[in-house]
Amino acid sequence: MVDLRSDTVTQPTAAMRRAMAEAEVGDDVFGEDPTVRRLEEAVADLLGKEAALFVPSGVMGNQIALRLHTRPGDEVVVAERSHLYHYEGGAPAALWGVQLRPVGGPSGVLAPDDVEAVVRGDADWEPRTTLVCLENTVNKAGGVVVPPEAVAPLADVARRHGLALHLDGARLWNAAAALDLPAHVLAAPFDTVTVCLSKGLGAPVGSVLAGGAAHVREARRTRKLLGGGMRQVGVLAAAGLVALDGRGRLADDHARAGRLADAVAALSAFRLVNRPQSNIVLFDTLRHPAPDVVARLEAEGVRVVAFGPRTVRATLHRDVDDAALDRAVAVLRRLFS
Amino acid sequence: MVDLRSDTVTQPTAAMRRAMAEAEVGDDVFGEDPTVRRLEEAVADLLGKEAALFVPSGVMGNQIALRLHTRPGDEVVVAERSHLYHYEGGAPAALWGVQLRPVGGPSGVLAPDDVEAVVRGDADWEPRTTLVCLENTVNKAGGVVVPPEAVAPLADVARRHGLALHLDGARLWNAAAALDLPAHVLAAPFDTVTVCLSKGLGAPVGSVLAGGAAHVREARRTRKLLGGGMRQVGVLAAAGLVALDGRGRLADDHARAGRLADAVAALSAFRLVNRPQSNIVLFDTLRHPAPDVVARLEAEGVRVVAFGPRTVRATLHRDVDDAALDRAVAVLRRLFS
Amino acid sequence: MVDLRSDTVTQPTAAMRRAMAEAEVGDDVFGEDPTVRRLEEAVADLLGKEAALFVPSGVMGNQIALRLHTRPGDEVVVAERSHLYHYEGGAPAALWGVQLRPVGGPSGVLAPDDVEAVVRGDADWEPRTTLVCLENTVNKAGGVVVPPEAVAPLADVARRHGLALHLDGARLWNAAAALDLPAHVLAAPFDTVTVCLSKGLGAPVGSVLAGGAAHVREARRTRKLLGGGMRQVGVLAAAGLVALDGRGRLADDHARAGRLADAVAALSAFRLVNRPQSNIVLFDTLRHPAPDVVARLEAEGVRVVAFGPRTVRATLHRDVDDAALDRAVAVLRRLFS
Amino acid sequence: MVDLRSDTVTQPTAAMRRAMAEAEVGDDVFGEDPTVRRLEEAVADLLGKEAALFVPSGVMGNQIALRLHTRPGDEVVVAERSHLYHYEGGAPAALWGVQLRPVGGPSGVLAPDDVEAVVRGDADWEPRTTLVCLENTVNKAGGVVVPPEAVAPLADVARRHGLALHLDGARLWNAAAALDLPAHVLAAPFDTVTVCLSKGLGAPVGSVLAGGAAHVREARRTRKLLGGGMRQVGVLAAAGLVALDGRGRLADDHARAGRLADAVAALSAFRLVNRPQSNIVLFDTLRHPAPDVVARLEAEGVRVVAFGPRTVRATLHRDVDDAALDRAVAVLRRLFS
Repeated sequence: MVDLRSDTVTQPTAAMRRAMAEAEVGDDVFGEDPTVRRLEEAVADLLGKEAALFVPSGVMGNQIALRLHTRPGDEVVVAERSHLYHYEGGAPAALWGVQLRPVGGPSGVLAPDDVEAVVRGDADWEPRTTLVCLENTVNKAGGVVVPPEAVAPLADVARRHGLALHLDGARLWNAAAALDLPAHVLAAPFDTVTVCLSKGLGAPVGSVLAGGAAHVREARRTRKLLGGGMRQVGVLAAAGLVALDGRGRLADDHARAGRLADAVAALSAFRLVNRPQSNIVLFDTLRHPAPDVVARLEAEGVRVVAFGPRTVRATLHRDVDDAALDRAVAVLRRLFS
Repeated sequence: MVDLRSDTVTQPTAAMRRAMAEAEVGDDVFGEDPTVRRLEEAVADLLGKEAALFVPSGVMGNQIALRLHTRPGDEVVVAERSHLYHYEGGAPAALWGVQLRPVGGPSGVLAPDDVEAVVRGDADWEPRTTLVCLENTVNKAGGVVVPPEAVAPLADVARRHGLALHLDGARLWNAAAALDLPAHVLAAPFDTVTVCLSKGLGAPVGSVLAGGAAHVREARRTRKLLGGGMRQVGVLAAAGLVALDGRGRLADDHARAGRLADAVAALSAFRLVNRPQSNIVLFDTLRHPAPDVVARLEAEGVRVVAFGPRTVRATLHRDVDDAALDRAVAVLRRLFS
Repeated sequence: MVDLRSDTVTQPTAAMRRAMAEAEVGDDVFGEDPTVRRLEEAVADLLGKEAALFVPSGVMGNQIALRLHTRPGDEVVVAERSHLYHYEGGAPAALWGVQLRPVGGPSGVLAPDDVEAVVRGDADWEPRTTLVCLENTVNKAGGVVVPPEAVAPLADVARRHGLALHLDGARLWNAAAALDLPAHVLAAPFDTVTVCLSKGLGAPVGSVLAGGAAHVREARRTRKLLGGGMRQVGVLAAAGLVALDGRGRLADDHARAGRLADAVAALSAFRLVNRPQSNIVLFDTLRHPAPDVVARLEAEGVRVVAFGPRTVRATLHRDVDDAALDRAVAVLRRLFS
Repeated sequence: MVDLRSDTVTQPTAAMRRAMAEAEVGDDVFGEDPTVRRLEEAVADLLGKEAALFVPSGVMGNQIALRLHTRPGDEVVVAERSHLYHYEGGAPAALWGVQLRPVGGPSGVLAPDDVEAVVRGDADWEPRTTLVCLENTVNKAGGVVVPPEAVAPLADVARRHGLALHLDGARLWNAAAALDLPAHVLAAPFDTVTVCLSKGLGAPVGSVLAGGAAHVREARRTRKLLGGGMRQVGVLAAAGLVALDGRGRLADDHARAGRLADAVAALSAFRLVNRPQSNIVLFDTLRHPAPDVVARLEAEGVRVVAFGPRTVRATLHRDVDDAALDRAVAVLRRLFS
């Protein structure tokens, strides 16, 4: 099997398993787990923020951030393609009573003018705009990378209107690798940032929310409210630290995504949605419904996911090496030439 | 002053005032106000529903309906131009934890295919689509009227996916007048319907939520939760009954909207967004920002509202007769020819 | 029928009906109703607060206040007998996500030590105590009046812990009458106060929330969110102004409650829960279940309510004069001697 | 250091660390982690339920259960001493909009009559009672064990009124050990049950929610909404399986709690709140405020927690053997004789 469904499917490496087995741990609900603290400090440093908090998932990191920046009845501007809008179970409304304001189209881009155009006035009958969330890379748009020069004018709009800024950086490490920039450059304009240790980095579990010290203190309370307070969770943080060290290899995934995209582009049954900018390849299926393409590939040992009635996503990650990619490409050509 | 800002500004008529003064009333929280009951029965009959409930506003009617049909974490499909999305303070999220899914563009139309395209699957990470809300007429699109033949395919989509259907009929009486159809024909496909007694009908205060008997029973509880339970409120219901009787005159407002639109269309400073279909005239301001147009008209005794940076809305209603309209048109021509 | 079920059942007086019929009104959602403004200013003055807001019910006044002072996850200290805990449909949790912390027993008293004992610490796993709500008079305890000297030490506790203070003054006019003090003396220690115009004062509909100017501005937004924004609602405010003027007659209700209590106390079938301090008489039924007592009285034209399996409440109000009270007492004696 | 603050502070054993390092794992968000599945099946079997779900904490297990059984505006009956009321950050209101109805006193007992007395009627203004939650053992009451014969009449009350029943079994394994009964006997009357793998069992992280298949299917969605969906979390489940196997040793903790209680009871500075029934010793401090006692013990290497201004809790667990207990007892005697 070559599993290209998601970069979330990676197995922990031997080094991660060893780190988990040997981790020095304590009760993190009491703030006493030294490995968790080490990870939180490491991520805060990498992102250039005062403090950070380990959380069980990217969803929880994002949701805690939403609570920090909003009150019920507020409105949050997001890209129409955002994870927050589509893949977090309606949590912004369900948990915090905030309305999402999706802008932009399938490209996943959050343009400053689009944001400015939807900032609400102060009429009694309008929601109150208080937060803008950006995702980088944009998963649902095909791993689109947002460079600093696209963020700066957005941040200007936000500051001008007194809006907070949150970054859903589930794949921020991919963006940093693609742009060959340190993560803190990409994180700098944001009040809070969520990053994941699973996905591209390959840790089994875990995400981190980073931001100012006061925000992170309050975030601890919200994590507890959500049931995200865990005890000797340094066992997971230990694997996260190993994962962080290995982020240099993301460039390989990006190169392989490029190779896979070339192979797809050469087949007339498919059309690339865009040139891959990171580790995700998104393509339309011109001859068959996407679920059929998924099923036929699966029968030959290649797993991808339908991302729409006529769109398929394939994601490169640490457990797909060159040999596995070659096998996947061969299957694609055999079935769809 | 000719006040064209909204049809909500009308003064109660002498007949309404008399009805209020003479109303037979009781404690409606105990279900003992005979005039309220009479109004609720009258509206239920007009809309062809089993039961109805008096509420202090259209917002409350809509919000109670949302609660009847959803649970927190659900997603509700609405037109991008809908009142629910823009003018109810973010209440769907703030009160009930539901996410709105805006579809369609500036025309205000909710197309069946657009709705079908956004119905969610059943993945654990997706919100659950449970309700479609339609507005008729569509205020923010310029009083657009939705005919039964446009609703039928929408209702098909909803039924096929097990979705409930709610009608925000704040101006349903206008739609019925424009189409020359009884309101119950327009209400028939919907599980619940909100209608207003103020706006075009001109009652000082009040709306009604109609639907099945079980829904209305539960709606009473939700009204109380929201603080909408009132005591001898038959005094308002009495005015509402008078207002209902007078709904025949809405055609006059529509005719006057047409005359105003003709005058606007003849001025090169403006461009109609669309031909008015009911009592609302929406036009773009080509030479001046909308707030300037509003200010200059106001200085000459004509009040309209900015509906965007370059868009103005004028609304006809019972307190604008032919003479008042003539004055408004004269001012428009004088200022903007 | 002598209806002693509640002071909410009163019919509007002729003067109120006339005031409604003649009220000068405007669109209050736009802040343009002169009669509403007049009422709001009158109540703000009477309560010694900067500003006030007309709302359709006491429930809405209380719920708006809760939102002003809390965030989801906060805890609000209330008397175990409070209206907020029992008769507002669970709104504090349902609408605002706040937990109530009931203290004290059947006397309805909120003792300073009881409040201090339950103020939470700052552990990550605890709710955050942010508000104390007092009711005056305490309906469910039998119209118990809370004098200023009982409020002062409570206010001290609240200030010392940084807690806000809200007064549910649905029957504050009764408390003021019973104590022969101006209402503003009773309202002084509180950040916000809700008072009702129906109940003892006898207006058909309406309550007012008073407090600081910033609070009241924000309260307008919340009122809209809840669907409490109404248009030409000066028709109700006009009746409210008449009702306010008549508050001098509450002492008569209190005197009649004393007479009724004497009659009850003389019957061995009953035991007063306490001497009435305002317009409510609460008594235990020693020989029959409360619903039986209610039914037997009703059959003879006297209506009261069961307030527990063995407790009955009778409430005096403007529509029960001495003659009506005599009839009620005669029936009580005839049935239960 | 002898750490008696909580049974949550235990270090993972060598066997747990080995199991984590060797765990067979997959992406549990896709339902593909074999070790998680094994743990879920094991716990479902032990509790006699159809299905089970791994969650990161007991708080999340309880909160998911609350959502399964309630709607916003509902009321949930809990013991006044319950974890839900005091230590879950106000989550029942904050996340799900439900009001808690605390009953009973410091003994932690939830008596059937107390529950029956607070079940609400169906008036429009009352919250709706829908769920009763029991905790076993009751942490805040001192590890009180609730035997099946105390649960049966509670379950009768619940069934008679159509209420669901949830068990917060964070320390259910202790209850089972104390009563020498299989856990499924204690779980049988409940619709859903939360159990913890940390605390007495000593796993580093993790809890399980068990119940009917439909409930657990819906619980997966809610877990995702809360950010509790994790990827290769079999690494934690593996430790949980080892922990489960070792639950036989809980009797040792209970025996040691008895020994510690004897030592405390012999000191006139203290008074036992009750004889320990499981692994928790709760005692009042007669001569010094509880924080002073905590500080003096800590200075001598014994850690306990203040559970009130004059109450201290000491908890036995796997990392406190006989020798450690002897040291703690010696310190107690030395300081407080």
